[in-house]
Amino acid sequence: MTVPKLYYFSIRGYGEYIRLLLIDNGIKFEDIRFPWQSNEWAELKKTMKFGQVPCYKVDGQEIVQAGAIMRHLGRVHKLNGSNEQEATFLDMLFDAIRDVRLKYIRYVYFDEGSREDMVNKTLPESLERLECQFEIHPGDFIIGNKLSYTDYILFEELDIYHVLDGKILDKFPALKAFWERMWQRPNLKPYLEKRTKDNVWISAVEKGMN
Amino acid sequence: MTVPKLYYFSIRGYGEYIRLLLIDNGIKFEDIRFPWQSNEWAELKKTMKFGQVPCYKVDGQEIVQAGAIMRHLGRVHKLNGSNEQEATFLDMLFDAIRDVRLKYIRYVYFDEGSREDMVNKTLPESLERLECQFEIHPGDFIIGNKLSYTDYILFEELDIYHVLDGKILDKFPALKAFWERMWQRPNLKPYLEKRTKDNVWISAVEKGMN
Repeated sequence: MTVPKLYYFSIRGYGEYIRLLLIDNGIKFEDIRFPWQSNEWAELKKTMKFGQVPCYKVDGQEIVQAGAIMRHLGRVHKLNGSNEQEATFLDMLFDAIRDVRLKYIRYVYFDEGSREDMVNKTLPESLERLECQFEIHPGDFIIGNKLSYTDYILFEELDIYHVLDGKILDKFPALKAFWERMWQRPNLKPYLEKRTKDNVWISAVEKGMN
Repeated sequence: MTVPKLYYFSIRGYGEYIRLLLIDNGIKFEDIRFPWQSNEWAELKKTMKFGQVPCYKVDGQEIVQAGAIMRHLGRVHKLNGSNEQEATFLDMLFDAIRDVRLKYIRYVYFDEGSREDMVNKTLPESLERLECQFEIHPGDFIIGNKLSYTDYILFEELDIYHVLDGKILDKFPALKAFWERMWQRPNLKPYLEKRTKDNVWISAVEKGMN
């Protein structure tokens, strides 16, 4: 098997949870990054079957759409639960978390809603619902003690919202403990520390950060 | 096994491709519909674990998120391709089609963009890309001659865009032939005819239709 390639902008964005999954699980990949709206990207785009990123090239297949890439990695690397019911639950939660991200994206890129709304209303409401999930499946991860692909989108989203407001997780003890635990994972920690040091942007536009 | 229940508004919306899949494959289900913003929905919402629709209740599990429901049905009813590569391709295309739908939804509910933009630019660009998929996998369906869950979102989207502009499919012969073929499927045809006769709305807000 040749080493898979992940193509994405040099921001965290939709590519970041794919990177986190690969790094945490020790899966070798080429992490190909390029600036948003750059000539490099314009040229690369022409060579791609679907002309969009994140794009994960593996065994001759070009996979786009962050959700499809994550679910593929989940199945292939045994991070997709233990049965149909768990697989469905993980899929459902992944898309629910992505819906919250879409609101955040519209806030950052399209100026929809205010920072106050995000921090005081939209995000706490979503976090409340996610906090409940840890009551349904108590344990270190979303589905109890088995790691899954959805843990990476949850962690990344929590991390973003924590950057937006350092106190936002304080009211959600299960989520906060999960976020802290993920930060300490041996493969992730050095990557996350470097990411902070390098000041890698969350979005192509920086907005509303403290 | 008890009969599954599908809860959704009395419009086509995100629930419709789930209904189409179930009806076309002869899967018995209770098709529970209620008006948008009704008391009926407000009461029902309180009894639901996630408080959102479409919601598919099966074997004690409540599944929300249209994509997660469709992928679940795809796996359980053998409508998910024949191998990992096909499953990933179907997933990717499902989300790509959903991205186009999101633009349409923002046009209808949030007044984003004009009808002219939708009909002359946004939709034809997306349809062009989808047309190419039929060149990659020639046959009656998205992955050649095997029916899949993604065929139902594609069909429903094409049908909506055809309502928006009766000539929009004319430049895309493979898509148009697919759309016409789906319309003739024995289990679907009577349902689709009744849907037209009953004038079931596409969205909770009707807009831009001819």
